[in-house]
Amino acid sequence: MTDAKKNKGSVTIVVFSGELDKAIAAYVIATAAASMGMGVNMFFTFWGMNVIKKRGGLIKGRHWMQKMLNVMNYGHAKKLALSRMNMLGIGPAMLKTMMSQKRVPTLHEFIQTAASLGVKMYACEMSMSVMGLKKEDFIDECAGVIGAVSYLADAKESNVNLFI
Amino acid sequence: MTDAKKNKGSVTIVVFSGELDKAIAAYVIATAAASMGMGVNMFFTFWGMNVIKKRGGLIKGRHWMQKMLNVMNYGHAKKLALSRMNMLGIGPAMLKTMMSQKRVPTLHEFIQTAASLGVKMYACEMSMSVMGLKKEDFIDECAGVIGAVSYLADAKESNVNLFI
Amino acid sequence: MTDAKKNKGSVTIVVFSGELDKAIAAYVIATAAASMGMGVNMFFTFWGMNVIKKRGGLIKGRHWMQKMLNVMNYGHAKKLALSRMNMLGIGPAMLKTMMSQKRVPTLHEFIQTAASLGVKMYACEMSMSVMGLKKEDFIDECAGVIGAVSYLADAKESNVNLFI
Repeated sequence: MTDAKKNKGSVTIVVFSGELDKAIAAYVIATAAASMGMGVNMFFTFWGMNVIKKRGGLIKGRHWMQKMLNVMNYGHAKKLALSRMNMLGIGPAMLKTMMSQKRVPTLHEFIQTAASLGVKMYACEMSMSVMGLKKEDFIDECAGVIGAVSYLADAKESNVNLFI
Repeated sequence: MTDAKKNKGSVTIVVFSGELDKAIAAYVIATAAASMGMGVNMFFTFWGMNVIKKRGGLIKGRHWMQKMLNVMNYGHAKKLALSRMNMLGIGPAMLKTMMSQKRVPTLHEFIQTAASLGVKMYACEMSMSVMGLKKEDFIDECAGVIGAVSYLADAKESNVNLFI
Repeated sequence: MTDAKKNKGSVTIVVFSGELDKAIAAYVIATAAASMGMGVNMFFTFWGMNVIKKRGGLIKGRHWMQKMLNVMNYGHAKKLALSRMNMLGIGPAMLKTMMSQKRVPTLHEFIQTAASLGVKMYACEMSMSVMGLKKEDFIDECAGVIGAVSYLADAKESNVNLFI
């Protein structure tokens, strides 16, 4: 199902949270692991799907509750809140500036680096169905859509399994 | 202490958070793993104890601080908030409706399925003592009360260990 | 890089969250594991760095954004919020009282016990750089500063890897 190297040295990360700080933490670990030659599979579920959602486009979802939740939960890699001290968006802006002053990549750059290093990013089938999202709603770096059983098949063979 | 199968293929989940979305994520993974034949142990601690607390009954706890915290922290599987966009309870209601439209089980159904698949659910000894809760305050599906050492004895033998 | 025992029985914990309840959960697991003879490495990153920051001293950080974030994010082991029901500090005070009535150690005591049991506590290099913190800003129990690659080298050899 997923083709990352299956061995002791591989990593799986469930990205449940859709906040900028947690997403960056996930990608710091994912890209470091991939640069060390470890296979990395990331599973984006619930709010975490925002991290790999495409920017803009039509209002997503098929019926009014899905549309309403998708509008209120609007977000993509360049527009995510912080888990603390969001301060109506000042927090994320400050963090981005501070990161760029220290030459830390942006989340957008992290995603591209991760993809180029072979990190596999998957969207969660059940969450997508509940929220009315389709494969096309995700960025091109998203490798596909899988369910919990496929995630577990990978996690079982990986030594480092995190839930963020 | 706990009798789930001890092998590479087993899973432990510490459920620290008492929010509906995180509880559902925990049970999606737990039930998928159990259906694949993996042994699964769940440890409910801190706010996570709400997930397996019985509905109703007397105000729990022995002295006023415990009682006050238990009243303010009132919750059980059918009454949990969301970690984001709770909107005074509208968020959970919408999520429940959207899940049922997609035939995703409710949390209550997930708990019963998990128990029938042999998932072991334990309450954390220290958290119970601090909050003044007793074994009888938990649902029948709760397999018992254990401490951190027993959790670690299981985690040590499991390949997938998550903290949610 | 890090010298905890490398074997199936070792534990790594990424402490991302800076809340009292999550910090206590991390130390309950860390000290239980160490008392069982398992090697334990803790990595404090983002808000989690508050847990091992020294109390008081000058305003930390070099330029105004770092200083502002460090003032707003002021915290150390004796002054952390709760992830839920913080109630302007009443929640943490109640939890501390309830814990002490049950003879559960304070966070400060947990940190000292952990250090005496050989638990290694590391601060995250990238987070420190972004926030403008230096090694001297951390408590003496902090064993050093390491990056994601060193964390992964440990996690790869550990069976229990948690992200809190």
